[in-house]
This record gives sequence, C-alpha cells and structure tokens, in this order.
Amino acid sequence: KFKYFDINGSITPAVGASNSGCESSKESSRSSTPVLDTDRTDRLRDKMRHRTESGDHWFSLEFFPPRTASGAVNLISRFDRMGSGGPLFIDVTWHPAGDPGSDKETSSMMIASTAVNYCGLESILHLTCCNQTKEKITGYLSKAKRLGLKNIMALRGDPMGADWEEEEAGFNYATDLVKHIRCEFDDYFDICVAGYPTGHPEAESYDEDLRHLKEKVDAGADFIITQLFFRADTFLKFVRDCRAIGITCPILPGIFPIQGYQSLRQLVKLSKLEVPEEIMQVIEPIKDNDAAIRNYGIEQAVSMCRVLLESGEVPGLHFYTLNREVATMEVLRQLGLWIEDPRRTLPWAVSAHPKRKVEDVRPIFWASRPKSYIYRTQDWDDFPNGRWGNSSSPAFGELNDYYLFYLKSKSSKDALLKMWGEELTSEQSVYEVFTSYITAQPNVAGHKVMCLPWNDDPLAPETNLLKDELDKVNRRGVLTINSQPSINGKPSSDPIVGWGPPGGYVFQKAYLEFFTSSENVTALLKVLKKYEPRVNYHIVNVHGQNTTNAHDMQPNAVTWGIFPGREIVQPTVVDPVSFLYWKDEAFALWIEQWAKLYEDESPSRMIIKYIHDNYFLVNLVDNDFPLDNCLWQVIDDMFELLDNPPEEQPAEQPAEQPNDEQSDKEQPGK
Amino acid sequence: KFKYFDINGSITPAVGASNSGCESSKESSRSSTPVLDTDRTDRLRDKMRHRTESGDHWFSLEFFPPRTASGAVNLISRFDRMGSGGPLFIDVTWHPAGDPGSDKETSSMMIASTAVNYCGLESILHLTCCNQTKEKITGYLSKAKRLGLKNIMALRGDPMGADWEEEEAGFNYATDLVKHIRCEFDDYFDICVAGYPTGHPEAESYDEDLRHLKEKVDAGADFIITQLFFRADTFLKFVRDCRAIGITCPILPGIFPIQGYQSLRQLVKLSKLEVPEEIMQVIEPIKDNDAAIRNYGIEQAVSMCRVLLESGEVPGLHFYTLNREVATMEVLRQLGLWIEDPRRTLPWAVSAHPKRKVEDVRPIFWASRPKSYIYRTQDWDDFPNGRWGNSSSPAFGELNDYYLFYLKSKSSKDALLKMWGEELTSEQSVYEVFTSYITAQPNVAGHKVMCLPWNDDPLAPETNLLKDELDKVNRRGVLTINSQPSINGKPSSDPIVGWGPPGGYVFQKAYLEFFTSSENVTALLKVLKKYEPRVNYHIVNVHGQNTTNAHDMQPNAVTWGIFPGREIVQPTVVDPVSFLYWKDEAFALWIEQWAKLYEDESPSRMIIKYIHDNYFLVNLVDNDFPLDNCLWQVIDDMFELLDNPPEEQPAEQPAEQPNDEQSDKEQPGK
Repeated sequence: KFKYFDINGSITPAVGASNSGCESSKESSRSSTPVLDTDRTDRLRDKMRHRTESGDHWFSLEFFPPRTASGAVNLISRFDRMGSGGPLFIDVTWHPAGDPGSDKETSSMMIASTAVNYCGLESILHLTCCNQTKEKITGYLSKAKRLGLKNIMALRGDPMGADWEEEEAGFNYATDLVKHIRCEFDDYFDICVAGYPTGHPEAESYDEDLRHLKEKVDAGADFIITQLFFRADTFLKFVRDCRAIGITCPILPGIFPIQGYQSLRQLVKLSKLEVPEEIMQVIEPIKDNDAAIRNYGIEQAVSMCRVLLESGEVPGLHFYTLNREVATMEVLRQLGLWIEDPRRTLPWAVSAHPKRKVEDVRPIFWASRPKSYIYRTQDWDDFPNGRWGNSSSPAFGELNDYYLFYLKSKSSKDALLKMWGEELTSEQSVYEVFTSYITAQPNVAGHKVMCLPWNDDPLAPETNLLKDELDKVNRRGVLTINSQPSINGKPSSDPIVGWGPPGGYVFQKAYLEFFTSSENVTALLKVLKKYEPRVNYHIVNVHGQNTTNAHDMQPNAVTWGIFPGREIVQPTVVDPVSFLYWKDEAFALWIEQWAKLYEDESPSRMIIKYIHDNYFLVNLVDNDFPLDNCLWQVIDDMFELLDNPPEEQPAEQPAEQPNDEQSDKEQPGK
Repeated sequence: KFKYFDINGSITPAVGASNSGCESSKESSRSSTPVLDTDRTDRLRDKMRHRTESGDHWFSLEFFPPRTASGAVNLISRFDRMGSGGPLFIDVTWHPAGDPGSDKETSSMMIASTAVNYCGLESILHLTCCNQTKEKITGYLSKAKRLGLKNIMALRGDPMGADWEEEEAGFNYATDLVKHIRCEFDDYFDICVAGYPTGHPEAESYDEDLRHLKEKVDAGADFIITQLFFRADTFLKFVRDCRAIGITCPILPGIFPIQGYQSLRQLVKLSKLEVPEEIMQVIEPIKDNDAAIRNYGIEQAVSMCRVLLESGEVPGLHFYTLNREVATMEVLRQLGLWIEDPRRTLPWAVSAHPKRKVEDVRPIFWASRPKSYIYRTQDWDDFPNGRWGNSSSPAFGELNDYYLFYLKSKSSKDALLKMWGEELTSEQSVYEVFTSYITAQPNVAGHKVMCLPWNDDPLAPETNLLKDELDKVNRRGVLTINSQPSINGKPSSDPIVGWGPPGGYVFQKAYLEFFTSSENVTALLKVLKKYEPRVNYHIVNVHGQNTTNAHDMQPNAVTWGIFPGREIVQPTVVDPVSFLYWKDEAFALWIEQWAKLYEDESPSRMIIKYIHDNYFLVNLVDNDFPLDNCLWQVIDDMFELLDNPPEEQPAEQPAEQPNDEQSDKEQPGK
C-alpha cells in the first residue's frame, strides 16, 4: 500500500527533471487523464502481468459467432450477463466460411466489435491466415483496429481442401501471421497464439511442435492459450517443457467442461484428441442423461482446475463455453472466481473502445439504453472526462437504425404484443402496461411486462426503491421511463447504489422522467413555481416546444462520488441540450417499437400515435439532495390541482399551449 | 427566473439546426466552458448593460500609480481590500512623466496589470495620446493586450510645453486615439472616454465640447466617465444634453469626496473647475480641521450620490479615490453599495486575465500565496477547468523573483524582525513565533505576529476554527502553514466556509500542512500505518526525499461544491506533483524571507538554516469528510509515541532516514 519515490526519480522526467525537480518550461499545455483507469493497466498483457504478480487468479471465456440474426441478439445479451461475472477478457473465434470480416451481424468481426464497444468487454478476435492474401489480412486488421479491437489470436486455421500446399510468399503458419501483425501494426495489438499440450495433430513430433510454438512467441506473441485437455498433468508437463526451451510468456490452460455426449464426440473428432479411458468409462453408461453428463463435466472441470491453480503455474483459466452459460458459470462459482456482486467502476458500464477510455460523464437520459448512447456518440473525437462541459457542443448521430442487432429488443414481436397488449382500447390501457412493468404484476391478459420500449430489462434494483411511488403515478398517466432516488453520501460499497473504488461516498440528486398529457403539464407548470429554485425542469413535446428553468442551459450533475486520493467523479448529468436529442429518440420509440406492432390505421396504433403526437416528455431534478426527495410531492400537488381546480378562474389556460403562460417571462436578465 | 426557448430557436444553431434539432454532424469535438462565468457577461460593457437592465447599481474606483516601490506594495494590498467591496471595475491613470508603459513597478501599465492578474479586478488602463507616435501607442496597446488588459480609457492628455501644435498625421484629440484603437485592435478593447459636465476648459463652448464627445462615441467609445463636479444638477443636465444630441451609451458620474482643503485646491486648479460658493462657505472656516473637512466631504458626496441614483439616469458611480480608502468606503457604505460580506465565487480570488477565465481548480498549497501561484503559472496555455487532470503535466515557473513588488511582504524588514525575533536562540524560539501568529498573542518581545513567510495576512476566519488545536501542536514543533477543517455539506451561503452560487452545498476534506523535525516524521510514519487508507500523506525534505501513499499520484479533491443546475465544482486539490514544486518555494521562504533578515553566519540565521536543511514538509488529508477530523488524533498519536516509545525496540529507526523503513514496501502492484 506504500509508495516511495525520489524526486529525481520516476515522476519528474515528464516535466523536465532537474535537481530541484522544478525547472521552468514553456511547454505548459495540460492534458487530462482517466480517473479510474491508468495507462499502465490498459493493455491486456499488462493487466495479466499485474494480476499474475498480485496472485489474483482470473478467467476468460471463448465464444463463436452465431449463425442467425436472432442468435446474435441472444449472444450479445449473454455477453452482458457473463460480463458481469468479471472475465478478464472474452474471445471470438474466426469462421472463415461465415464471411468473418464483414459487417453482417453474425460475423466474427461484428460480434467482437459489439463485445468491446457495446458490452465493454476486453476482447480478442481470432484470425486465421491460411489461404489468405497479405492484403486481405491487413484489411481485416485495419478494420479491427478501427473498430476498437486491441487483441488478436493469431492462428493458421484449417487448410480448405486436400490439395493445400505451402505458398511461397503467403501465410503458411501462424508465425507468419504474428510477424505480419508486428511488421504492419508495430506494437498496437496484443497477440495471443495457440499451444497444443499434446502436440499439434499435424506436427512431426511433440518437440517439433514446441519449437514451432517458440517461433511464434519469438515472432512477437504476448501469451499462449492452449487447446483443451483432460488431465491437469498434461498441461503442467507442457508448461514445464515450454519453460525448458525458453518460452517465458503466460500460458493459459484451455478448459472444456464436458456438457454433453454429442458435443464431446464432435469436438474430439475435430481436434483429433483422445478422451482418457477413465472419463469414457464414466460417460458411456450415462450418455443419454444430459443432466448427469453436465454434472459430471462440471465436477471434472472443477477438480482439474483446482489442481491447476494450486500448482502455482496457472495465473488464469480460459473456458471453451460453446456459447452456453450454465456449466462454465457453475465451474467458476465453485472455484470462487465468478464475481457474484460486481463492483461497478461507474454507475454505467464503461465501453472498452480505447478512444473512450477517458470517458466518465454521460447524460442520464440513456441510462437504460447505453448501447444506443454509444452508437450515437461513436463518431466523437473525444469524450467528456471530469465534466460534461459546454452543452452546445455535443453532436449526436441520428438513430434511424433501430434494426441494428445490438439495439434490438431481446423479445420477439409476439412476446411484445403479449406484454404491451394485443389490442389497446384507450390511453388508460397504455397506463396499465406501464403499471404492470413497474409492479412486476401480470397485465390484464395475464402476462408479465418484462420490458418497455425505453427499458429492455426489468426494473433496476435501485428503481425498485421507488416502486410504490412509481406505481401510484403511472396509474394516473405519469408514464415514468427513468428515475433515481436522492442519495446523501452512502458508502461506495453499498450493494444497490454504490460504485467506484472502496472507501468513498456516493451522492445523487433525485431524478424523474416521464411522458404525460398536456393537461397535466399545464397543471405541473403552475405547481413548479412553488418549487423554485429547488427543482430544475425540462418539458418538451415531439414538435420541440420546450419549457425549462435550466440556468444558462448548463448541465446539472445528478450522480457523483468522492473517493480517497481522487478528484470528484460525476458520471451522470442532466444536460439540457442532450435532452433535446434524447427526446427525438424517446418519442420515436413509441412509434418504432410500439405503434408498429399494430396494423396501419388500427385503433391500437392510433392510440399510441395520439400519445406520441400530444404528450410531453418531462424531466425533474430535485437539487436539494440532503433533504427528502420532493418530486413525489410535486406530482401529488399536480394531481391535487387537477382534482380541485381553483374555482375563480375556470379554464384559464388553454391546455394545448403550456408555453404561452411563460411568454411574459422571457425578459433577459431575469 | 423563467427561461423559455423553442427548439428551433437560439440554442440549436450551434449544433446544426434542423426541424428535429438533431442533425448528425461529424464535427463532434467537444469543448469545455467556465462554470461560474459565461461569455455573455465577460466584457465590461456587457456587465454594465446587464446590471443597468436589472437596476442593480454599481460603483467603480480610480487610482493613480504610486511614486515609490513601497507605495506599489501598499497600493496592491489596497486593491485587495477595496476589491472585496465589489467594484465593477477600477481604473489606473496614465502618468506620461512616470514612464507609464514600462515594466517598472510604479508604471501605470504594471499597476493595471497587477490589478487584473494578481488581484482579479476588472481594470481600465488610461492612455493619453498627445505627443505620441502611432507606433508608440500601438506598442502600448499590444503590451496591454498581452498582459490581459481589456479596457482602455482613451484621453488626449495635457500637451507638454506651451508650444504644442496640432500634428498633421499624429494624435491631436482623444477621437484620434479611439479611432486608432478600433482600427488596429478591432473590437478587442472596451473603450471609455471622458466627458466634461461643465465643458472642457479648452473647448470653445459647452456645445462645441458636447459635439467633440459625440465624435468620440461615434468613433467607437463604449461608455463615458465624467470629470468631477459638485452639484447633481450639473451632471443631470449634462446627461440630458448628451441624450439630446444622440449620445446613447452609459454616462458614469465622476464622484470626488472632498478629503482635505489642500487636495481640493490642487485638484480644482488642475481641472480648472470652480468650487460652488455654498461649499467654500462651509469649508473655509474648518480648513485646518482635516477630520471635519473629511466628514463634510463624505456627507456632501452621499447626498449628491443619492440624488443621482434616484434620478434614474445613473446606473453606477465612479469614485476619484486619490488612492485613499476611508472616505470612499464610507460614502459607499452609507449608500449601501459597499459589499460587507462578499460572496466568493470560488474559495480563492479568480484572476481577471481573459486567458484564465475558465480556471476553476488550483492546488491547495498556494492558498495563502495566490499571487505566487498566478506568477508561476502565467505562461500556461490553458488552465484546469473542472478537473486538475494529469498530475504529471503541470510545469511551474521558477520563483527566484521574490523581489517582485506583488510578491513582497507588506511589512518592512524592521517590522519583520520585531515579529519574528531580533535574535533567535533555538528552534524553540521559532516555535514560539508560530504560536504567537496562531494565537494572535504578542511574542516575548511584546509584538503581535501578523504574518509569517508563508502567510502575509493574519489567520483566515476559517483557520480560526482550528485555533486551539493549531496552538497546541505548534508549541511542540509541528509548524503549521496551511490547514482547513472538514465540512460535510454546509450551505453555500455560510459566512465562513461558503462560496459559489446560492442554494448549493459546500464540502471539504480536512487538510493540514506543516514543517517538522525528522524525529517527528519517523514517529509520524509509524502512526500513519494505523490510518490507512483514511489519511493520504506526502512527506518531503528540501533534498526531495519523498514518502507518500498517494494512489497512482492522482490529485485529491479537498474542496468541492454542489449547486442547483450545475456540474460539480472542485476548486482545490492536493496534487502530489505540484506539491514537489511547492516544497521548493515553501523551503526557500525560510531562507529568503526569514534567514536573510540576520547577518551571515549569525546564530539566528544558522537556526533557520538548520530547520531549512533538516525539517520535513508534511501534508495530510483526511478522506473521511463525513466523520470527525482525525488529523489532530494523528498528531496526538505521534506525540504519544515520542513521549512513550515502545521499550522493547530502543532506537530501532535512525531518525535521519525516514525513507528507509519504507524500502521493503516498494514492490509494484501493492
């Protein structure tokens, strides 16, 4: 925990070291750094070294690209779920026959890119080189770099057809690919290569294969992942043999929990491995009992992993998941490597794209749609760090691409209709959908509402804190889509609202965002006068009619944390300008995700269309975070005013024009 | 308080307005803005307009450059005192005979620059043009711009000698100067010109003079300050006459509180004004009674100002101070214009240099030496905004220029010797000086210690909160030079610790900085192990031997504020790298300001030299701001350990090498 350095040592050279350490310099431009990540731990190989040195075991997960578009949607949500267990990295295999470098949603390239950019996972993209031109390979690598991928698993791949011959100037071995990557991309990529604990099936001998491996490492590979094996001894002997010939880089064992009889047979056939007799003896008798085989596979993997970890030779375990969750997660749980209660670095998942590594502020509006936020800001040259800054600057990309697989709902049209109503009869039936979602109670047709167009997942634990209040207001047409309670200095380790390093304190201003009718907005604006300047509000309809009391259109920090030895971190803001970009998306979701479930001109579609055209999107912030959240009182006051309008001035305000009542207040300087 | 805008209106053009307001753009670079200042109010003329429109009366103060170097030191501290009353601006007259554009500490240019850069005052530099070449004038203006001056009072000046004639291509009138400024510097400067309520003494007529004034305004002047006058009617008629011929800009009355018989006579002679009979009748009988005349002057000025302000024609009052404080302050107090309890924008005074306008973070070390901090960072290209950022970046200028007048102590060598001891006999006598300073009790020689080399002013009210504890530790050789208590969410309006806009909450982590002996440091380091990770520390001696537990050398925010509708503001940080620049300055002050008071080789000088060579500079931060400050307990524990050393390990640690005990903890990754 102690750091010692001398003034003449490591920290001063950057500023022109002298004996005093304080030589004047005209190069005084200042730059900013990420708060919660440092360059030292940014590269995968450095993260590995760091954790190896600290004796902190890790795991990693291998996936293959899906065959279908809906398979891609499912795999991405699997990434989110398995990512929460804390893998050091995932890797995505290269399927030469599946157009692996294309922009298709099922391509290796797209799946790996989505894992990095949208799921925030450190990822390795496999790449095979045989039968490929240098130009093609360089093209793949350039594209990978452009997409934010930083790690490559360099493989030869299986030659296609029987008549394969070595090409003079082409890629014949993985070594050629490693050399090519280092030659063309210098040290940009971290490179992984494959090791064969029992020797490559095509190698002349085990020793010959070890020499090939040494060549790959010497050519510039950073670490080795092995082919699967069935006995710990096989791997441990392999490591000893590697070390003996001078291979010093990390060697990660490839773990294959047996998950079924057929998949085992298929894999063994492909990889030309032999399954040990003692395993076959157990499996053959139970080969038709899937559950029994899986349980055996878990047990066998756990005991083998224990031996490996206890050997002291194994810093981390690599799992061949076969795109399944249960077995691998169970093995990791039993080993104590699965993180049950992941500590969040920030309240939102940080993207793993290197360009975004300093990012630590986002508008709150996309809290439930982080992938959409990442998509719409993918072209930004730099990302907010420390402060959101000038609210007139952000330029968000359009979101017309609701079909993109990483933005799609996990649910089918059928499932959505069941949740949101096969037929809507009134605005009230929409309110009931919202209420069912909030309360997690079945709707009138008996189906649980698991998502809404603005939230593809059930209510967050934090929002659950507000459940009763949310239930009450949604019933009356305050259709909430985003909210957070006020927090006045809870420990950063708090299981529900905590985030960031230990020993800190987190804070929040209460936030509430909802759609509601123009009648309600008219009453709300009257009520809000009583809450000046405590409550900041923005109210806008689909046409852009906008009312706000935001001071100078500056962003309002609504989540922040104070940590030992750190600057303040303020990861979410309510930014008035971003809100106007968000409102286009928020209103469009009514049509794109909900109205379009129904026939053109059908009553159901017309009801959603009416809400889209006539409701307002409202956000409220209670600035007095040390006091009890007053936003529910604001809504109560609004209902009270609607229920008991003052008698002396009936129909004073035309409900359609909430802005008109403000027009006399447009004086500058007020 | 209400703001209304339409999405198609004023806020969207910056991001490429479309009907939806959300057109995609590749120009996505983001920039940052100041939190507590906006461009709209940044120019003096805009500030004036803003306050005129809101009916918020202001005042401004005129000074002339001093004759001597010590006069300059005094004037600068007068700027600090009078600046706290809240003038909208000050102005500094141009003395053609006093080398006004030079770098001499008494020049008009240097005084105005110091007011802007070091005192944070919006300032106007006078400039006279007669007998000057265009090149000379352009040179002055370029220099003024380079120094951060933004406003010029354009004057003709008094022709020198009787044989002055109009020059064909030169500057004959202020109008020529106004035109020249606009021609050469476009709209960069705000320009003020002089108005003569009774006509310029050399003008052919009052009307002729008004026409000249109109010419000056038409040439590009932004506002007018008038010559002094003795009757409100004189000014009000003048304003009417100006408006009648189409002069629409602000016209500020020049107020001259009569402060003495001689100064009145002299001024009247110079300005060729006539003192009204009714005033002379009062003054003549009391002309030898300074106090009586001053009281009359105050009374007369107050009643005249009241008439002016009530006329509705006067948005602000301009005072000819004659470089004195009492009369002007008293007039302003009686008018209710003097701000008794200035609200601080940030905990430190913001510099008025335009380059620094976004600055909102500084290291805490210079809290009592802000002018030194400004001096050492004057060459920075950009200033921290929102976060301190990368601690390896800052490049501080050397501080070898202790002689610079704005860095000098206000006290004379004589006064310093009385306070800090004509003769020192031991380290203990140094401790007593610190204790006298802290307690505001006279030292052994009976003199109050009003300053220390690290603090040129008496203890701040905030530090007074810690007085008893500070007293106790200084007596025992913990020589404190900077400290703040912990604050857990006090209102931003708090009279002692508050700052920033109303309705906010301010926070602090407790901070303590002191010099102490290496014996104490050895004990302190043992004690600090108990306070991990709650307390961050940096300990360094003059040779740069440095011990710290600062995580990744990142800055630690120790003062921050949360405000309605704002991002978080964190104006002070403990930055590990800046600390090493500060320590050079902090140690040098022992020698430069204290040791050098004594003869070479004298025992007094040797004692200070010994402390300089052997003591350590320590800073401590208590990260747990919601809990009671633990730093006093840390010091108590240190004394306890020194008083009762554990018996089993006598003299375990060589006191001179506090770093050695850490050397076994230098492993990476810990």
